[in-house]
Amino acid sequence: MSKQATVVKAGIIGLGRLGSRHARHLVEKIQGIDLIAACALDDEQLKWAHDDLGVANTYKDYKEMIDKEDIDAVFIVAPTPFHPEMTIYAMNAGLNVFCEKPLGLDLNEVNKMAEVINRHPKQVFQSGFMRRYDESYRYAKKLVDEGKIGKIIYMRGYGIDPISGMESFTKFATEADSGGIFVDMNIHDVDLIRWFTHQEPVQAYGITSNIAAPELEKIGEFETGVAQLKMDGGVIATLIGGRHAAHGNQVELEIMGSDGWLRVGEHPDLNRVTVFSENGVTKPSLQSFGERFDNAFTDEVQDFVHNVEQGTQPEVTVEDGIKALKIAKACQESANEGQLVNIKL
Amino acid sequence: MSKQATVVKAGIIGLGRLGSRHARHLVEKIQGIDLIAACALDDEQLKWAHDDLGVANTYKDYKEMIDKEDIDAVFIVAPTPFHPEMTIYAMNAGLNVFCEKPLGLDLNEVNKMAEVINRHPKQVFQSGFMRRYDESYRYAKKLVDEGKIGKIIYMRGYGIDPISGMESFTKFATEADSGGIFVDMNIHDVDLIRWFTHQEPVQAYGITSNIAAPELEKIGEFETGVAQLKMDGGVIATLIGGRHAAHGNQVELEIMGSDGWLRVGEHPDLNRVTVFSENGVTKPSLQSFGERFDNAFTDEVQDFVHNVEQGTQPEVTVEDGIKALKIAKACQESANEGQLVNIKL
Amino acid sequence: MSKQATVVKAGIIGLGRLGSRHARHLVEKIQGIDLIAACALDDEQLKWAHDDLGVANTYKDYKEMIDKEDIDAVFIVAPTPFHPEMTIYAMNAGLNVFCEKPLGLDLNEVNKMAEVINRHPKQVFQSGFMRRYDESYRYAKKLVDEGKIGKIIYMRGYGIDPISGMESFTKFATEADSGGIFVDMNIHDVDLIRWFTHQEPVQAYGITSNIAAPELEKIGEFETGVAQLKMDGGVIATLIGGRHAAHGNQVELEIMGSDGWLRVGEHPDLNRVTVFSENGVTKPSLQSFGERFDNAFTDEVQDFVHNVEQGTQPEVTVEDGIKALKIAKACQESANEGQLVNIKL
Amino acid sequence: MSKQATVVKAGIIGLGRLGSRHARHLVEKIQGIDLIAACALDDEQLKWAHDDLGVANTYKDYKEMIDKEDIDAVFIVAPTPFHPEMTIYAMNAGLNVFCEKPLGLDLNEVNKMAEVINRHPKQVFQSGFMRRYDESYRYAKKLVDEGKIGKIIYMRGYGIDPISGMESFTKFATEADSGGIFVDMNIHDVDLIRWFTHQEPVQAYGITSNIAAPELEKIGEFETGVAQLKMDGGVIATLIGGRHAAHGNQVELEIMGSDGWLRVGEHPDLNRVTVFSENGVTKPSLQSFGERFDNAFTDEVQDFVHNVEQGTQPEVTVEDGIKALKIAKACQESANEGQLVNIKL
Repeated sequence: MSKQATVVKAGIIGLGRLGSRHARHLVEKIQGIDLIAACALDDEQLKWAHDDLGVANTYKDYKEMIDKEDIDAVFIVAPTPFHPEMTIYAMNAGLNVFCEKPLGLDLNEVNKMAEVINRHPKQVFQSGFMRRYDESYRYAKKLVDEGKIGKIIYMRGYGIDPISGMESFTKFATEADSGGIFVDMNIHDVDLIRWFTHQEPVQAYGITSNIAAPELEKIGEFETGVAQLKMDGGVIATLIGGRHAAHGNQVELEIMGSDGWLRVGEHPDLNRVTVFSENGVTKPSLQSFGERFDNAFTDEVQDFVHNVEQGTQPEVTVEDGIKALKIAKACQESANEGQLVNIKL
Repeated sequence: MSKQATVVKAGIIGLGRLGSRHARHLVEKIQGIDLIAACALDDEQLKWAHDDLGVANTYKDYKEMIDKEDIDAVFIVAPTPFHPEMTIYAMNAGLNVFCEKPLGLDLNEVNKMAEVINRHPKQVFQSGFMRRYDESYRYAKKLVDEGKIGKIIYMRGYGIDPISGMESFTKFATEADSGGIFVDMNIHDVDLIRWFTHQEPVQAYGITSNIAAPELEKIGEFETGVAQLKMDGGVIATLIGGRHAAHGNQVELEIMGSDGWLRVGEHPDLNRVTVFSENGVTKPSLQSFGERFDNAFTDEVQDFVHNVEQGTQPEVTVEDGIKALKIAKACQESANEGQLVNIKL
Repeated sequence: MSKQATVVKAGIIGLGRLGSRHARHLVEKIQGIDLIAACALDDEQLKWAHDDLGVANTYKDYKEMIDKEDIDAVFIVAPTPFHPEMTIYAMNAGLNVFCEKPLGLDLNEVNKMAEVINRHPKQVFQSGFMRRYDESYRYAKKLVDEGKIGKIIYMRGYGIDPISGMESFTKFATEADSGGIFVDMNIHDVDLIRWFTHQEPVQAYGITSNIAAPELEKIGEFETGVAQLKMDGGVIATLIGGRHAAHGNQVELEIMGSDGWLRVGEHPDLNRVTVFSENGVTKPSLQSFGERFDNAFTDEVQDFVHNVEQGTQPEVTVEDGIKALKIAKACQESANEGQLVNIKL
Repeated sequence: MSKQATVVKAGIIGLGRLGSRHARHLVEKIQGIDLIAACALDDEQLKWAHDDLGVANTYKDYKEMIDKEDIDAVFIVAPTPFHPEMTIYAMNAGLNVFCEKPLGLDLNEVNKMAEVINRHPKQVFQSGFMRRYDESYRYAKKLVDEGKIGKIIYMRGYGIDPISGMESFTKFATEADSGGIFVDMNIHDVDLIRWFTHQEPVQAYGITSNIAAPELEKIGEFETGVAQLKMDGGVIATLIGGRHAAHGNQVELEIMGSDGWLRVGEHPDLNRVTVFSENGVTKPSLQSFGERFDNAFTDEVQDFVHNVEQGTQPEVTVEDGIKALKIAKACQESANEGQLVNIKL
């Protein structure tokens, strides 16, 4: 056997769009882990995991999976409202937990979740802020930390889905609570702003609209959200969440410094091809965040396995997750109330 | 004589950075006008106008110039606080007036100025919102008006000067009132947002900072200002004014529509050269707004001459100028007070 | 009068696409010159010059114009085959001559033309290598001359017209001799390569094709020509001429140096707008070389006026024009014969 | 076991820059294969394979490895001159062979190699034209095959290494035969031109130079090579090989079609970060082809494993490899002889 020794046995909860991506990565790309169990409500998804990925045992009840299987770690990629209870159950069962972002939607539940996590300091808990693993953000972070752009003045984070995703979002949001535009689309941006600036926001001004997708009104969702944040160290930030970009998946971060600026993902280039056509000179665009962040998803999970093996905790803590959630919620509250919201973390 | 018949005789007040550009254009590029008089405080500037441009008569007192010269029109390119009194004097003297933006800094004075202008409906009054004449903005406006990007959702306007301009700004702001970062740097963006959306802002949240240039604190100025605007038709907008871009003059406008987006001036390309060096692949940047908008300055003045000849009024009215000023001031007020400001136009 | 004193009285021969552009520039933009006469075969063009531009006298016979009018300079923008005889006639009449490129198509005639020009060293003769006046090429030249990219290794020049120009070219080439693809489309590139490298080509390998426009075969023209040149100092160069770019007017120059590269006009950006649409992220393209080089056309003519006023000769000599023609013809000869052609200048 | 069943047992010959990349991929990324043996001359490399990658057995003599080990496949990543004898030995031993490009440097040896390969049609032979597996080239190929850019008129392939690679190349080329600039740097471009056009070149005009790196003269190498190819179906092509790009690794392919153009790798973007600095607006560049083509290297080897499992042969045949070699050698011959070379494949 040339493969590195397998140390971690794992199960996964959730095999949807992101869950199936994680499952495939665990089987095909991640070193030092065996995915031996999977839980989902959908029979076809379970059949796919068993037949295509070779996952030994499948379940419809996550508690049953955790109780029966001899696993070291569980990946929680179920709908967000279930994250807290699943994490609590898994932590109490002695497992290491990788939980997708956001931690949850209800702050009370998330606080309980954090309490349980903090009572088990020897088990790894890692949440899915995968952008910190993306090579472009890491490159930007390195430049910033080396002082290449001086002091940060302003940041701007766009999380805007393509029109091509509207149908599946509408279906999803009809059945479940998305958490609102800022929680759903900008929680990564919030995390990045905190990561780059080491500052916390103290005030938010959020505005939402449904100009591009009035049909979202019926299901209590907004197509666009814009929020301006005042940070405690003087940095100013703008967040934009949206669901209706004609060209593709616009995940853009701007970092203005006193001696230079960076933009990450200014255009969502699909690949290295430039097309010269009757339209002009065009770079085709990515449609899918999964495609955009495929390597980051792999690297964060590889880091989780490393943490489990070494007994170390990840850089991003559950407290980071809670703060990001509170900030995104404050933006939403501001938009809902039509007034400034002071943020206390 | 092959030149088109000269119909308009003109004087100019102010021969500084922008004034000298206008003067040169009037002599070398604009059809149908003769620049026969110039007023400035500086002897060298007057000598330059006389000797290099061939301007017949020069003055240090603008009233004297207006009284003595047989002119049809006057160009006011003096410091902003003087715009109202000069405009009032010239309108009352029966002249057509081209006045640089902003109209003034004090709203009372500007209102009086508007009153006088409105009492002389047969004289042309045009203010210098030259971006409406820039070919890139016009191209963007055409696409928007043709419905190519659907309904506007969001706009973002950056007016950020290069570091190379800091010294001259500091000198200028020590002696004069700039009007504040939003009035000084974003009044064009405000005009463009109104022009593109046909909507008016109802609420502003402004924040300012001096992270990049703490020395500005002493003279009561800010290096950066960021404001978020809520428009009466649902559009959301962000303004950024700044004075410390390392790369050059960043005048950028983003227009997000429901079916597509436009960015004007995403990068301030100096020319059509791409440089491949040890830094990577680089487009050199423009440093000067004068260079950036040279053609727009010419075209707006040519349009003014046309208006004078035809007895027509320009698209941009004095009311547009007043509204833009009020909006920029509201952003500043919000930053000063640390609270939301409701805007009544 | 604020206009600078008029010193040069001029006539123009040819009012087609380029001729009318020059005529308009002479009337509206160029300082120190009066366009008082125009010659063309087409009545409407003459009427336009008279009525719209205010040109006093119009002619159908260029000799009549030269004989009758009291002019100092003539602009020759007639079809290329007429350039030599017109230049000879004008030089012999004591006029300063601005002649569009190329100098001619027949080398014997061009040599005679040069002889006459050289016999009148006090009269200015300037040929229309306007790219040397374009700000982007000048910027590139400055970087090269300052040693910023080290020693030149390789150059690549594209002169490729858009599909939108095919119809007018086919009409033109049916009636007249274009000189062949390399003479018609790459003579500027040849001039630029000589200008940048200070080297002369010694060998050419040209290939032509009609894949994109087989209909050109009937009129003895080629749609694409590619030639590789060996220069006497070791530089290698590639020329591409074409008539069928889907996106626009691709006039691109690459300069590879030992310490860096430059590309001028890598993409033919129409303006400063970026479009985000279902196609991806697009920069619209220029269609017209006239639009692309409008400022260069103005600046070269202004320089001509300056030369006439000062009695100086331009940087580009008639010998430069002859050499460029010989080189372009050698590329064509190589393509026609299917073998390498040694170049003797 | 969640990993897919291991079907292929493999050894590798060569653990240098590219060999170690392949070895790591085989262990960490490729499904369905076990790397159980490695051969190299260098003790440290063998130790790395054993200790870090967990390769069971290591050898200094490739024949010994092939004789002793129970392997199904061998990866040949040794210096090019050894490719033929190693391939012959392995094929005769009944193994499936993955051999890096080019096949060899001596055409006689390569022909013998082909003969042996063709005598073992049930064993897979695959050569490393990994660009056919790169997602950007595949995207371009798809557009071309779908007729999106019409008929191909012209192609341009650049294979230009960064200055940062000069030292290691000089060391390498002092000890071994690189095959010359066209074989070393453009063999992939030759393969791509044949792949995209389905045409064969009939004539080559090559020129080489050492302007940027005169020190290469001593070791019989050239820094730059430029060749123009005439294809049998009318397409024209330009190849440029180089070793001295200041900015990075320029692997660029242009495909001009009658209805549109494509450029792959116009700029060698390092990642998705744009830097705004005193230089202007910059995209940092890749330095390493390994980094550029990491995914392509993985995908081609995965495809090889698939071929071995299924008993299928790859799209690229040994004949493709021989033709690419002949064409690159013809360019070199033309440069050496200073004349056109007719190509017979």
